Amino acid sequence: MQFFLDGFRAGDPDVKPEAVRPTSDSDVVDVLVIGHGPAGALIAAQLSEFPGITTRLLERRETPMIQGQADGVNCRSIEMLNAFGLADRLNREGCFVNETAFWGANAAGTGIVRTGRVRDAEDGISEYRHVLLNQARLHEYLAEKMGNSPTRLQPEFGMEVIDLKLPDNPADLSQPDSVVVRQLNLPGQPETVIKAKYVIGCDGARSTVREALGLKLIGVPQFHGWGVLDVLATTDFPDIRRKVIIQAPGGGLAILPREGGYMTRLYVDLGDFEPGDNPRDRVSKDDIVAEAKRLFAPYTFEPKEIPWWSIYEVWQRVTERFDDVPDAERGKRSPRVFTAGDACHTHSAKIGGGMNLSMQDTFNLGWKLAAVLEGRSPVSLLDTYNDERMPLAHEFIEFDKVWAPMVDGKAPDGTAFSTEQLRNRFQEVEHYTAGVATHYPAALLVGKDTHQRLANGFTVGMRFHSAEVTRLADALRLHLGHTHEADGRWRLYAFGDAAPITSDSSRLRALCEWLVDSPDSPIRRYTAAGADIDAVFDVRGILQQSHNELEPEDLPSLLLPIKGSLGLNDYEKAFTRGVNDGDKDIFDVREIDRSQGALVIVRPDQYVANILPLDAYKELSDFFAGFMIPVK
Amino acid sequence: MQFFLDGFRAGDPDVKPEAVRPTSDSDVVDVLVIGHGPAGALIAAQLSEFPGITTRLLERRETPMIQGQADGVNCRSIEMLNAFGLADRLNREGCFVNETAFWGANAAGTGIVRTGRVRDAEDGISEYRHVLLNQARLHEYLAEKMGNSPTRLQPEFGMEVIDLKLPDNPADLSQPDSVVVRQLNLPGQPETVIKAKYVIGCDGARSTVREALGLKLIGVPQFHGWGVLDVLATTDFPDIRRKVIIQAPGGGLAILPREGGYMTRLYVDLGDFEPGDNPRDRVSKDDIVAEAKRLFAPYTFEPKEIPWWSIYEVWQRVTERFDDVPDAERGKRSPRVFTAGDACHTHSAKIGGGMNLSMQDTFNLGWKLAAVLEGRSPVSLLDTYNDERMPLAHEFIEFDKVWAPMVDGKAPDGTAFSTEQLRNRFQEVEHYTAGVATHYPAALLVGKDTHQRLANGFTVGMRFHSAEVTRLADALRLHLGHTHEADGRWRLYAFGDAAPITSDSSRLRALCEWLVDSPDSPIRRYTAAGADIDAVFDVRGILQQSHNELEPEDLPSLLLPIKGSLGLNDYEKAFTRGVNDGDKDIFDVREIDRSQGALVIVRPDQYVANILPLDAYKELSDFFAGFMIPVK
Repeated sequence: MQFFLDGFRAGDPDVKPEAVRPTSDSDVVDVLVIGHGPAGALIAAQLSEFPGITTRLLERRETPMIQGQADGVNCRSIEMLNAFGLADRLNREGCFVNETAFWGANAAGTGIVRTGRVRDAEDGISEYRHVLLNQARLHEYLAEKMGNSPTRLQPEFGMEVIDLKLPDNPADLSQPDSVVVRQLNLPGQPETVIKAKYVIGCDGARSTVREALGLKLIGVPQFHGWGVLDVLATTDFPDIRRKVIIQAPGGGLAILPREGGYMTRLYVDLGDFEPGDNPRDRVSKDDIVAEAKRLFAPYTFEPKEIPWWSIYEVWQRVTERFDDVPDAERGKRSPRVFTAGDACHTHSAKIGGGMNLSMQDTFNLGWKLAAVLEGRSPVSLLDTYNDERMPLAHEFIEFDKVWAPMVDGKAPDGTAFSTEQLRNRFQEVEHYTAGVATHYPAALLVGKDTHQRLANGFTVGMRFHSAEVTRLADALRLHLGHTHEADGRWRLYAFGDAAPITSDSSRLRALCEWLVDSPDSPIRRYTAAGADIDAVFDVRGILQQSHNELEPEDLPSLLLPIKGSLGLNDYEKAFTRGVNDGDKDIFDVREIDRSQGALVIVRPDQYVANILPLDAYKELSDFFAGFMIPVK
Repeated sequence: MQFFLDGFRAGDPDVKPEAVRPTSDSDVVDVLVIGHGPAGALIAAQLSEFPGITTRLLERRETPMIQGQADGVNCRSIEMLNAFGLADRLNREGCFVNETAFWGANAAGTGIVRTGRVRDAEDGISEYRHVLLNQARLHEYLAEKMGNSPTRLQPEFGMEVIDLKLPDNPADLSQPDSVVVRQLNLPGQPETVIKAKYVIGCDGARSTVREALGLKLIGVPQFHGWGVLDVLATTDFPDIRRKVIIQAPGGGLAILPREGGYMTRLYVDLGDFEPGDNPRDRVSKDDIVAEAKRLFAPYTFEPKEIPWWSIYEVWQRVTERFDDVPDAERGKRSPRVFTAGDACHTHSAKIGGGMNLSMQDTFNLGWKLAAVLEGRSPVSLLDTYNDERMPLAHEFIEFDKVWAPMVDGKAPDGTAFSTEQLRNRFQEVEHYTAGVATHYPAALLVGKDTHQRLANGFTVGMRFHSAEVTRLADALRLHLGHTHEADGRWRLYAFGDAAPITSDSSRLRALCEWLVDSPDSPIRRYTAAGADIDAVFDVRGILQQSHNELEPEDLPSLLLPIKGSLGLNDYEKAFTRGVNDGDKDIFDVREIDRSQGALVIVRPDQYVANILPLDAYKELSDFFAGFMIPVK
């Protein structure tokens, strides 16, 4: 953590100084977020960090949710939450998934038998592991983060959205969206209208926002039900503290171990049903428990407390578009309203797609909204949200359609699919379930893979996969990716070439000097006068030398910048190669070209936007010119 | 973290359920802690976890301290703070010391030059690193911990202790100590008298509690002053983000990098002074800055903000005894009043002795007080506080007397001591500065080293040095020592013998069965009826097999116990060998006898009390009989 740049402050550094802001009508805001689920809480937490942006977060529930629903936080989500300062806490409180066990029918068909176990997630996929934790706790973490932000944002409960109206001319940003709201806890009060430049509907599968846009979730119902239990139970089932997929005789069961060491989440297969015969209407908690007991045989299973249970129906659906722009207007105007999470796509629970994908939706959108609202990018940047996220939702559905039946024991061709086959396939699809398979194609915000080979361990269009380095100034060993905060800034990781940084032939040094001096440099073009040099682009240099061969004075000024109101040096910009597993340095494990070095450009949402040679000044300049507005 | 044993609870699991307690006169308590420094805050935080014990914590300052004073948290302290659930937070917010650099006079004697760097602390000394953090933040962490405890303890500020009186017959526990208190923020109010079974004076070098006992800090003043600055500065000194010891021409300077990445703590040598000419009376902040600038030459040093500064005089002192029992009464009655931290010993700042040693004092005392107040041990247990801690304070002073002059460039014989010599010596003394050199001799609470060779990596009388294991039930890789919470319980780490746990010849199985069944078992003798089987003794088994060769059902019941009001299984008692650096398992790195196994008995303050063969039932029984009271 870095703090005290503008002088010492007593107390918790996670509590940011409150921004002094002009008083304004709270019913006129920049961004109105509807729904305090994972998607809404995440984007509200991100936007709350920008003192110049006004945000409100409304939730229909009259009190914060305390339990139930999603509970799986995948590796990728934890990488992202680390940028919010929440990973340590999540890892301390949550339950790690370490192994997944597979069970199938025994030879006699009378019960279940273990067919194998695999490490989950496989080492090396991420520096984080999958974590299981009550979704409500994530809401609480994010709400605390908002409350500690410079804008001291607080979610508002009991606020039901009745209607949403776009302005007559949505292309005219001076005309706001209008959202009609009823306060559920003040029944006598008239409805109020909140005016917002942008509205984000994170209000779930029955989204009022989506419906107001005239959009539907589209997909064929599967007529297949699952019972879900959060349960404190005794059992002699040996893998109860592992993630387990059971293809029992006559039914499926999935187990997730939960936080605290005693609780378990069960998914109990309730089988196919006829339209009109939804298990929601006829299956009780006791029925689910009875079915679970049957599926656990020959093992015992005795619930002692069931804090939460539910029945859900698998329905893989995606809406027509993730924003308010009809096809006819696409490209002519940019969006004013967005949907995210369950409001625009739903999946089976088998791939951890719900909560994780939802948070990734709004992490994709948050920095774009901030860039537009702060005047750093044109409104056309907002078109990329739908462009990037909608295909991904479809891709997930396709994956889910193949994967979910396999978990239930059915191959795509309808034949039986054994747990052995499932186990083998499980590791192949692990990048999906870990959330690290997302690959944005080349477009406005993602370069072509022309220079991919300079850094093969970072894939253009995929998330920045962190590795360890050693910080030059203090020899700290740390994960390079952990320097990335959810602050809307771009990261330029400049991996040094073979020439020492002190040499005139060093391309890394030349790049740093160009970035400071050239009128074509993105830093000079897009950073406001008077702002810190890293206010928009956070450049970090990773050198091939060891930290004992270099001094801070050897660095170009960009890698030891003077910042803040006191004019202090930031010593956290330069790194040396570090040591990863097996004495490999970051150049080894991420396959950086040691001769030429590489510039890895990372978006504010941690995706690799481009990989360029260190001296590709024009390409660098042109890339950002595509979607940024020069300062005056 | 383990939670939900008695059922699901919403919200932050660090906030424990508030205990229902009989209303009582708040001026009559079990323990009165005087002083909200590290020593006082730590013991208050520990005692607050016991619903049956009433505690108050008084602080003279009218508001919480916000900065200054100590800032070094050594490896051992972090191991301890992890037992309070605070290590992750401390490591996230604090600044790691990674290397110490040594600088001496250059050849021309005109300025300073680096003579070397060492890794600090050396890898393997502890799983934690030294951390630097404003002492006030530690107070805040501990105050939050108390506030979240079952007793919701809050420190009380502006409470000045005027006097302390022992009862007429201190051996009679029905007679309380009387502490006269004035509320500084209520000037008109009369003084109040608080009655307490035990009083702990953590009220600093000018301790009212110590003085009320008629005791003094004894030691020869060194007439040597140091200026201390917390400073945000610019400098071209290359090691400003490392710990640095500088023997400059004509003076000494020490640097500690601080939390947040911009602040630095400087210790500036103000040299010897004549009695009566204390630099406190004549040296200004500007003088200290000017001297620092001189010592940094040829490097620049420009302070931009100095949030805190002070001048201190080195004075190595220890009081006559750490409790109220005069020599003549020693052994005849047990103590009623204790002093801890600076109230009973002071050191130079060079060894990180102040805050760290102070917290270790009260961590030593806290569990003993809880055991006595809860009726598990006789009052004679309290004699061991003075017995164990006072010799250690003297040992530290002796170490300090030799070490501190070396840092200033003087060998014990008064000759010059070069930075090269210092650097070499630094690594030899690192166990001291890391806080892991403490070695309690054999006595009531520490066994003889008869069976030391069964587990040479754990030294009887020294702190339990954690290593990694794999949890059987869920394959989690974790540090065995991190299962140890500051809850007053004893840990019995039973390392398995060569026989598989399922075999009749397994000594580990036999020990577990004996512990459950035998009337001589400490568990049966000292655990109250109806309490969980691990309420007093937390037994953990570490098996030599891999986690894939065993099932939970293979375990003896003690290692898969049924607990809590719901009767749930605790799956966190059994571990397998794990993998440490270089594929070594815990049996390798801690040198456990693989043929016989070993029982490592660890005190509630994390010190190894004894090492016994797994079948040494009588020795095990006798050891605890020495200081515990059987339940009726």
